[in-house]
Amino acid sequence: MSQDLCKLSATEVANLTRSGELKVEDYAKALIARVQEREPIVHAWAYFNPDLILQSARALDALPAEQRGPLHGVAVGIKDVIYTKDMPTQQYSPIYKDDHPILDAAVVKTLRTMGALIFGKTHTTEFACCQKGPPTCNPHDPSRTAGGSSSGSGAAVGDFQVPLALGTQTGGSTIRPGSYNGIYALKPTWNAISREGLKIYSLTCDTVGLYSRSVDDLELLCDIFRLKDDTPPPTSPLNLSGAKFGFVKTHVWPKAQPEVVDIWEQAKSLLKAAGAEVEEVDLSAKFDNLSVWHRNILHMEGQSSFLSEYLAHPELLDPWVTKHAVNDTKTTRKEHLESLDEIAKLRPVIDEIASKYTVLITPSVTGEPPVMEEPLRFTGDASFCLMWTVLHLPVVNVPGFKGPNGLPVGLSLVAPRYHEQDLLRTTHAVSEVFAEGGWTL
Amino acid sequence: MSQDLCKLSATEVANLTRSGELKVEDYAKALIARVQEREPIVHAWAYFNPDLILQSARALDALPAEQRGPLHGVAVGIKDVIYTKDMPTQQYSPIYKDDHPILDAAVVKTLRTMGALIFGKTHTTEFACCQKGPPTCNPHDPSRTAGGSSSGSGAAVGDFQVPLALGTQTGGSTIRPGSYNGIYALKPTWNAISREGLKIYSLTCDTVGLYSRSVDDLELLCDIFRLKDDTPPPTSPLNLSGAKFGFVKTHVWPKAQPEVVDIWEQAKSLLKAAGAEVEEVDLSAKFDNLSVWHRNILHMEGQSSFLSEYLAHPELLDPWVTKHAVNDTKTTRKEHLESLDEIAKLRPVIDEIASKYTVLITPSVTGEPPVMEEPLRFTGDASFCLMWTVLHLPVVNVPGFKGPNGLPVGLSLVAPRYHEQDLLRTTHAVSEVFAEGGWTL
Repeated sequence: MSQDLCKLSATEVANLTRSGELKVEDYAKALIARVQEREPIVHAWAYFNPDLILQSARALDALPAEQRGPLHGVAVGIKDVIYTKDMPTQQYSPIYKDDHPILDAAVVKTLRTMGALIFGKTHTTEFACCQKGPPTCNPHDPSRTAGGSSSGSGAAVGDFQVPLALGTQTGGSTIRPGSYNGIYALKPTWNAISREGLKIYSLTCDTVGLYSRSVDDLELLCDIFRLKDDTPPPTSPLNLSGAKFGFVKTHVWPKAQPEVVDIWEQAKSLLKAAGAEVEEVDLSAKFDNLSVWHRNILHMEGQSSFLSEYLAHPELLDPWVTKHAVNDTKTTRKEHLESLDEIAKLRPVIDEIASKYTVLITPSVTGEPPVMEEPLRFTGDASFCLMWTVLHLPVVNVPGFKGPNGLPVGLSLVAPRYHEQDLLRTTHAVSEVFAEGGWTL
Repeated sequence: MSQDLCKLSATEVANLTRSGELKVEDYAKALIARVQEREPIVHAWAYFNPDLILQSARALDALPAEQRGPLHGVAVGIKDVIYTKDMPTQQYSPIYKDDHPILDAAVVKTLRTMGALIFGKTHTTEFACCQKGPPTCNPHDPSRTAGGSSSGSGAAVGDFQVPLALGTQTGGSTIRPGSYNGIYALKPTWNAISREGLKIYSLTCDTVGLYSRSVDDLELLCDIFRLKDDTPPPTSPLNLSGAKFGFVKTHVWPKAQPEVVDIWEQAKSLLKAAGAEVEEVDLSAKFDNLSVWHRNILHMEGQSSFLSEYLAHPELLDPWVTKHAVNDTKTTRKEHLESLDEIAKLRPVIDEIASKYTVLITPSVTGEPPVMEEPLRFTGDASFCLMWTVLHLPVVNVPGFKGPNGLPVGLSLVAPRYHEQDLLRTTHAVSEVFAEGGWTL
């Protein structure tokens, strides 16, 4: 029974807890047991306090049925750069180890209001910025990374420790762990979900990310966070016959490892077999600059974002953070502004391109999760994610395929800005097809 | 002596306290006495705790000379939407009255590291969003508004209660109170100063603002916050003979009251008399849309920003906040995105225009501070500020002129993005000329 409870989706849990068929406390105990069994291997959690969880669970059980929200009792892991009032937010930084902010981020407040059981804080790289990973391992092969910077959130959901988790993405920090852990991940349109109460790295890029093991669960979260398209899509399932997919290799395609090249063709074949039209989309040369522009923005916005920590505790910062704070790259204001302005010009252009297809499809990652080496514990390559982050388009990682080591390799579906509902409707149909890729949790 | 201490600029205070000529505690006592005398009239403070101030002052006095920062002992008022760890941040909202975030915003952390004496929390409209003002009155005429939303910060600096204060600007919330209280106000380039730990209204617009009674003090703050131009301006003073000023009426010029029309011509005459060239700049019709685009952005970004408060405490929100949270204006995603994209296109255009002049000059406000009427306590018209906020350009309010009731009316100097150093060098020269306008504190 315990094991089964851990496998439930958020939607399934809420149905059981809202009706009273399942006590939140019993559900919480099952998850706690799962975490206690797996934590010594996976190391997903920066803060995990069973007493606090059970206390919250009992408070939820005491609520009368009519006060139970759409996420009643659903366990959610919170990336440790997102502030929580009742749990420390340490940002994997010694600065905040014993002296952390006390407040609920807007996303956490919304989740609590909807009845969620805030389950604990998941590991992140320092300030969701650094290359050096936390102790988290990939649950499907502990020698490999779970990705970053939302390492713990991706691993915890992929390992059935919680059905939902929050991440953030500034480069590829939501989508990459989504792929590496073999789960669904949604990076919504920039600023569609409030980032109030999250550590800031880059205002232009930082985005709250969502993890789940089912498309229904992402839809549930989008509904809660009011991610509504101007024109809601039909409620009927998408018929792939008649759908048209734009496959976008992008300028970083040379980084694709053989397994990505393989699944690229597999995905096309599967969609065609399902009756869909498929075509490769060549973006104009302007888009080739996005990686450089993204880097300029991160470095210059990181300069102001990390200034206060640098001034107060220079000795406690990871060298990568310090590089930002002191503008080690000597990026100029002019380069920063040109990057912002040129990217801004491309946003309506890519919206227009994306709107010609049911969705765009692009790699989520360069390959399977890489083997970690100490002391860097590198969390993998974000190259395929950066451009969509800075272009502000919503992206879903769809699991389904696997690489030569049997580990998951996802593909990303991309829609024009503020088309999350349509994107998820398409994700339902595509995920059924991609399931033939052989990856199962 | 007490009175004299209150009149010191931040630069003067720091010189005295760093050398040990002035004890921070004595300085703090003088300011506390001033606040206690004036608070019953001005109502600048949302939180003011003399014991806490004196405790901090004594801790600063105990620091050895070599550890004293550039703001050693300088009193700074903090707008009550900017989080402070040791003082409540209530945001003029009943939601946060007894249950407020506990952390230092990045700006506060930086100020503390530089030795500032965090003096108290200054009044704001609810979430720095609403039209309804707090109890703050204009120190120069208590029947009139001190402006908003940074009401208390503007009033406290204008009333010699503190030499420096922090505000924020999403529409005209820094520049307008600057004008109404007859002081200097700088709204820097968007995101040049970290907004970590500030309540979010609109990510695209919200900007930390700075108040002082001297240009030197703004330069000191810019230095601390590392607002460096790519090419720092000469250290020598600007010679107005040879300078060229672009006077921009903008599409909201019809809102200018007679006193603004008057000082517009006065300012031109004074600058010409000082040897400067002066010309009117007509912006293209595209810029006429900025007010509407700004409104669309605020409403749609306010929707996600205020969602969590709306879900948790709908009954405790000002109706203006609720209008945002429920998208009462029925603004579409399409309108929101078009607004973002069209404004983004204009940013390099206005940078280019501004770079042809020493600075641009534009009204800060529509006129003198209006008389307040209960219960709205309207904080004045922000029309002249909105477009610069959303275009992200740095703006300084320069006091100098006065209206028919003897109350201050400022003008704004505007520079291309990330040209704060050059802007302040120009402000020095211009403020000497504008001083002939007759306004003195």
